[in-house]
This record gives sequence, structure tokens and C-alpha cells, in this order.
Amino acid sequence: MVRGRVTGRLWATKRIDTLPQGALLNVELENGTQIIALDPLGCGEGEDVLVTQGSVAAGYFDDIKAPIDALIIGSIDAD
Amino acid sequence: MVRGRVTGRLWATKRIDTLPQGALLNVELENGTQIIALDPLGCGEGEDVLVTQGSVAAGYFDDIKAPIDALIIGSIDAD
Amino acid sequence: MVRGRVTGRLWATKRIDTLPQGALLNVELENGTQIIALDPLGCGEGEDVLVTQGSVAAGYFDDIKAPIDALIIGSIDAD
Amino acid sequence: MVRGRVTGRLWATKRIDTLPQGALLNVELENGTQIIALDPLGCGEGEDVLVTQGSVAAGYFDDIKAPIDALIIGSIDAD
Amino acid sequence: MVRGRVTGRLWATKRIDTLPQGALLNVELENGTQIIALDPLGCGEGEDVLVTQGSVAAGYFDDIKAPIDALIIGSIDAD
Repeated sequence: MVRGRVTGRLWATKRIDTLPQGALLNVELENGTQIIALDPLGCGEGEDVLVTQGSVAAGYFDDIKAPIDALIIGSIDAD
Repeated sequence: MVRGRVTGRLWATKRIDTLPQGALLNVELENGTQIIALDPLGCGEGEDVLVTQGSVAAGYFDDIKAPIDALIIGSIDAD
Repeated sequence: MVRGRVTGRLWATKRIDTLPQGALLNVELENGTQIIALDPLGCGEGEDVLVTQGSVAAGYFDDIKAPIDALIIGSIDAD
Repeated sequence: MVRGRVTGRLWATKRIDTLPQGALLNVELENGTQIIALDPLGCGEGEDVLVTQGSVAAGYFDDIKAPIDALIIGSIDAD
Repeated sequence: MVRGRVTGRLWATKRIDTLPQGALLNVELENGTQIIALDPLGCGEGEDVLVTQGSVAAGYFDDIKAPIDALIIGSIDAD
């Protein structure tokens, strides 16, 4: 997994049907890379999050084959 | 997922049989990387798109084992 | 696989239900990249570990679909 | 997918049994990275090809679990 | 796949149970990256090898869910 910080939210009205309805958050990783992750936890801007990537991200959704390759799986506790 | 911009279209007449018939679009990612993604949404040049990568991209196709590792899953709304 | 060194531990109280209860360790890879890996072996800070990445990391868990993309699979013997 | 150019062929007489018999081609990607891809299309040196990577590459082979993480899926038409 | 050269062997006495017993070899890729790959072929130091990465590497093992993301699949013939 990688650590990142939520920097905003993205909307995509025109989308494929199998994309889940959850929030798509812009996340900046520690090395500066920008990715977009699905957020099932209701995280907000500035929050430090734990992100999993690849096909395991899609496994969170049981009933659909979600085309998701990045998922927020936790909010990192402050030290 | 990653954000990219459509920069053109690519044709490959000589191709393997299991490659779906949809448009193969050239997409430039935010970090300058060039990738080629299958587009089921009819996106055009200059459009900002959301791209998923890896084996989940192939999961969009039900009836075939599509050899696709990048799929456009949404068109990003303008701010 | 890649080699890394454990640099600390991370807590995420707010987390998705399918995240296993094991320790989430901060691991610094040889090239300086920071990742977070699940540790089923009880490794400690400063220990050199062998990390596997991607969907095979999740395969370690039989009964749940763990959203894990990095797993410590061994502790590297000193020379 | 990524675009690359065929730069040669590689032989590996000592190999695992499940490696398919097709040609293993050296391919230089646009960013200079060198990879080796299995070629089911009979491409030649200097040809511009479309390469898919990861587990979907192995899905092309029905009867065996091919240990292939890169597959040429098309030859790119000249402009 | 990628090309690499065997630079040594690694031992991990403390390991998870599903890690296969084969040799874990240090392999230096062409771009200087260091990875560790499982070797079912008995390759030696200095040998040029072909390495497959990701979940297809684990597919080589039939009876266990091996937590392996890199596998040596061939030894490259000298020119």
C-alpha cells in the first residue's frame, strides 16, 4: 500500500455503467504522484489515507466487476 | 486511476482476434507518460479522461478474455 | 519480490472492514521508495524483509478478500 | 497498452515447460524501456507494435497457465 | 518480461508457510533495479535470465497459492 493525502474530488458524469457511485478522490502520494482513488470511507480534503492499488481494489465490490484500480482502505491515525 | 488527455487515435489492422473492436486512443497522462487505452465512451481529442489500468480493465468485457490493460472509464467534468 | 527495511508502524483506526487485523509496517525499499506492507511474521523496526506486491499478496488470506497489495513474506538472513 | 518497436529476438533454450513456443521479441518502448514480449503475430524487426502487460497477457493462452506478462496484440498502422 | 543477471542468492529462514522452497535469487535488471525472483531452473551467478512479474509468476505453482511476484522463466542463450 501507499500513503497519500486527499487533495480534492473529481466528477465524471459521463462514465461507464460499472463504475461504483462512491466518491472519486484526488490523492497525492508521498513521491508527488497524483492518482484518483475510490473512497468508501468518507474522507475529506487534507486527510492522510492508505491506498491499495491493482486488482485487489476491485475486490471490495462483491456484486459488480468494478473497474477500479485504486481504493482508500484506511485513514491514517495522527502520531 | 489516473487522469489523462486524449491526443489521438491509433489503428492496428493486424491484430489478435480477442482485441475488442472499440477505439484505441492515445492518452497522455499528467506526468507526460503516453499510454493507449480502449475507449467505450466515444471520447474525442482534447477530452480529459479517467483511466483504469491492469487486469480490471479487461473485466469490462464479459464474453471475451480481452487483452486490455487500460480502459477509459469516465470523462472528467470541467470545474 | 523486493528487499526493504522496516522503519515503523502505522495505525488506521478508521478502516474498511475487510482489512486484516495484522500490523501495517512502513517499509523503505532499496531505491528509497516508501511502502506499507502487511506483516504476518512479527517483524520489528530495522529488520530487513522480503516483500511481495500485487494481487498475490492478498492470496495469503483464505477466508476474506483482503484489499492488500503488499505483504512481508520473509525476514532476510544476515550474511 | 504501450507502443514499442521490435529490436530483435531472444532465445532461451533452458526454459520452464509452461512457456509457450512463440517468438520472444525484444521491444523498446517509447520511453526507452526495454521489455521482452511474446509475439503471436509474426512481427519483424523495426515494426511498431501495441503491447499489453500484466496478467491479461497470459489470458491469451487457453490451455496452459502461461507465465507471460507482456504480449504483442497488434501492429500499429503507419499514419 | 524483463532481462536480468543473477547476482547472488538470498536466504530467509523466518518465512511464511506458503513460500515455495526454491532458490530466491538476487537479479539485477538492465536498468539497474534490484529484484528477487524465485528460480525453478537452477541458474547460477552471472547467468542472464528472463523474468516474468506479477500474478502470473504465482501461477507456476499448482498446489499452493504461492506469494511470488517474480519468477525466472528462462536462461537467455548467448548470441
